Amino acid sequence: MTADLLNRSLVGVSRSLANREVSAAEVVAAVLEQIERTDETVGAFSSVQAGAALARANELDEGPVVGPLHGVPIALKDLIFTTGVATEANCDALAGFVPDHNATVVDRLAGAGAIIIGKTNTHELAFGVSCPVSHNPWNPDRMTGGSSGGSAAAVSARQVFGALGTDTGGSVRIPANYCGITGIKTTRGAVPRAGIHLISWTYDTVGPMARTAEDCLALLEVMAGHAADDPYSAKQPLLPAAEVDGLTLGVPPEAWLHNAGTVEAVGATLHTAVETLAAIVGQVRAVTPPSGKDHAQHGSAIVFAESAALTATLRAEANDRFGDEVRGILSAGAEVSGVDLATAQDVRQQLQQDWQMLFDEQGVDLIIAPVNPNQVLPHGLTELGGLPLIPATTQFTFPVNGAGLPAIALPGGFDADGLPIGFQLIGRPFSERTLAAVGAAFQTATGHHLQVPAVASS
Amino acid sequence: MTADLLNRSLVGVSRSLANREVSAAEVVAAVLEQIERTDETVGAFSSVQAGAALARANELDEGPVVGPLHGVPIALKDLIFTTGVATEANCDALAGFVPDHNATVVDRLAGAGAIIIGKTNTHELAFGVSCPVSHNPWNPDRMTGGSSGGSAAAVSARQVFGALGTDTGGSVRIPANYCGITGIKTTRGAVPRAGIHLISWTYDTVGPMARTAEDCLALLEVMAGHAADDPYSAKQPLLPAAEVDGLTLGVPPEAWLHNAGTVEAVGATLHTAVETLAAIVGQVRAVTPPSGKDHAQHGSAIVFAESAALTATLRAEANDRFGDEVRGILSAGAEVSGVDLATAQDVRQQLQQDWQMLFDEQGVDLIIAPVNPNQVLPHGLTELGGLPLIPATTQFTFPVNGAGLPAIALPGGFDADGLPIGFQLIGRPFSERTLAAVGAAFQTATGHHLQVPAVASS
Repeated sequence: MTADLLNRSLVGVSRSLANREVSAAEVVAAVLEQIERTDETVGAFSSVQAGAALARANELDEGPVVGPLHGVPIALKDLIFTTGVATEANCDALAGFVPDHNATVVDRLAGAGAIIIGKTNTHELAFGVSCPVSHNPWNPDRMTGGSSGGSAAAVSARQVFGALGTDTGGSVRIPANYCGITGIKTTRGAVPRAGIHLISWTYDTVGPMARTAEDCLALLEVMAGHAADDPYSAKQPLLPAAEVDGLTLGVPPEAWLHNAGTVEAVGATLHTAVETLAAIVGQVRAVTPPSGKDHAQHGSAIVFAESAALTATLRAEANDRFGDEVRGILSAGAEVSGVDLATAQDVRQQLQQDWQMLFDEQGVDLIIAPVNPNQVLPHGLTELGGLPLIPATTQFTFPVNGAGLPAIALPGGFDADGLPIGFQLIGRPFSERTLAAVGAAFQTATGHHLQVPAVASS
Repeated sequence: MTADLLNRSLVGVSRSLANREVSAAEVVAAVLEQIERTDETVGAFSSVQAGAALARANELDEGPVVGPLHGVPIALKDLIFTTGVATEANCDALAGFVPDHNATVVDRLAGAGAIIIGKTNTHELAFGVSCPVSHNPWNPDRMTGGSSGGSAAAVSARQVFGALGTDTGGSVRIPANYCGITGIKTTRGAVPRAGIHLISWTYDTVGPMARTAEDCLALLEVMAGHAADDPYSAKQPLLPAAEVDGLTLGVPPEAWLHNAGTVEAVGATLHTAVETLAAIVGQVRAVTPPSGKDHAQHGSAIVFAESAALTATLRAEANDRFGDEVRGILSAGAEVSGVDLATAQDVRQQLQQDWQMLFDEQGVDLIIAPVNPNQVLPHGLTELGGLPLIPATTQFTFPVNGAGLPAIALPGGFDADGLPIGFQLIGRPFSERTLAAVGAAFQTATGHHLQVPAVASS
């Protein structure tokens, strides 16, 4: 019964909770038991608020249904503030940081009935594409990807029905891809960021991670929308979902994949996905997206300089408490000149325009691309092909942040070692509902997302 | 007959041109004659394209009416590219720069039938709030204001029916204010900037200058709207004009004016304007706009760093050919650190949000403010109250650029010396049509804009 319950989708379990077919207390108990049973292997959580979660579950069971997420347990990447709970971003320099308020998205989710189970591990200050504390549920000798690795592992290991991540250069999509779950990188400004440890005003986004596209959208519907407490929050709401069979899917040429070092298994997964998607959307058309090559250097200058600005006080007070890698990044950020930063923002704006032209002038509605050019990497790896992991693995994800576009990462199958390989669909600004609708149709057609890692079911 | 013609509004003369009551050749001849007669005193033009203008006039007279500006002579601030015509921004380092294409706005205006008469003087590279080459038509011992001083002087002296300026920190509104004309500082992104010498990606805007609000809107209707060749161009079009008698006007308290050093005559003009506007709009309400104090330092850091980035090649090749003032600004810009620039952009974004809250939460549609805290300054002045002119005179204009909002500068009367004093109305993003409608109603009620400086009629 517990396995059956935990394998259900977020939307499925929320329906049963709303109908009182299952109590929030039962669901929370099952989740806590699964965390206890599996987290020694997976290492998804930095903290679990079992008592508060059970208390809230009992409260919800005794009262009316409060919203669409009534009684649904979720986890939060440990960058996201919850009142009175340490939110340290796996960063010693933030040790002891206990917020006195919830992030805006936490207030929205809790207001819709979600129960916060705990905080998930991340790369220190979210500054990486791995998550050294966590292990991939499909094989603990592999990495979860990052930086929202704990959230991805928790969802994949059926410890929780959904989780929040943040994505600056791929940090929702990469761990979703490695852990075989679904994640949405949201449009710049679509989801408020107040109450989150930021590393970049320009690049950071918050997004949902769950097992299905429909689940991600259920979380996003609650999280999205303008908030007066976030000066970067867009007035524009999410667009209505388009009819899936009227959409045109853009498919990049082999050379575009090859130039970014895409390995064969990833390319093959993409091809198979295109075949499936061709039966779902209205049209498939060849398009060449902008090269991400120019962007990488300029995007890094922006993220690094902004992170140095955002951590100015912390660097002054506790610079020796950052890890070497993050201290190095912040120091490099502090060295970026204003002229280079201004120029980088102009290059980024041009990239954003180039992507926009792809949609507007080539008449495509979504574009398929790999998430990572590589397959799931060994746990503990810090370099790939002689490059640090960030530049080596973010060719397809980082430019999407530069352009401010939404993208959904979807499981696309498994490689010869039984590890997940996925892909992403990139859409027009604020088209998350359409991306989720296409993702849902793909998942209905394929079922990859229903596979369960052994650690979760054993 | 010539004086009658030249005193007509742009919209009035365009109607007569469209009806063939007057020919484009006659209008252009009258304009050229007025320039010859007055420009020795006024110094509005850096170059006049008399032959091309007359040729185009003859062409238009022989063909069908091509658009709403058929045959209307206009002038362009000498930052704005016209194919084959030197566009040097009163900057020696740009001497000999001859564009091989028109600015997007020039193509749009010419396509609507406007005839480009010439290029108007500006502060070197638009980097100031005076325009040393030009003289105020109301009194040549006074400055025109800047940096679009030539455009303002040309319109005021009846040399032309309308002109374009650019506004980074007040450069459309300040000369409009000093010269007793009307000018619109446009919403960030509302008007494309491709083909213009920029000094700031974040702050620069292009806007119309003319004698009436209706005239400004007639130019703006042709200029505004998304352009694929400008990555900063907004998709959002101008909003429809609201019903004027349903609007709420926000009026700042005395202390807000006083803290910015507003002189008595400027305050008195504002009060009188509020009394007139109270009979035009639906409601008047006291509101306190954000203080511009914090913004000045951060806004300057952004403009200076971006201008250093935009002129990187020019500085490398011809740094000694900048004037001392501009070379100093560009050097200061090159010294701004990335951390300071990133922080400045965050402060600017917060200011933008604070202004937005004023509209959204205090329920006002437009806010009245002085343009300058001071009256029209003596020609050649470079300091005021011990401060350089830019910080001394832009308290009310520069923050509006930071917030990305539109504003219309309107003549409000004359001081004891017979010099104009105006004010500005600041609106929600993309509300230019509403601002123009209120301005038109104010001008119908007052007639200040109909006064003619002696130099124009003598």
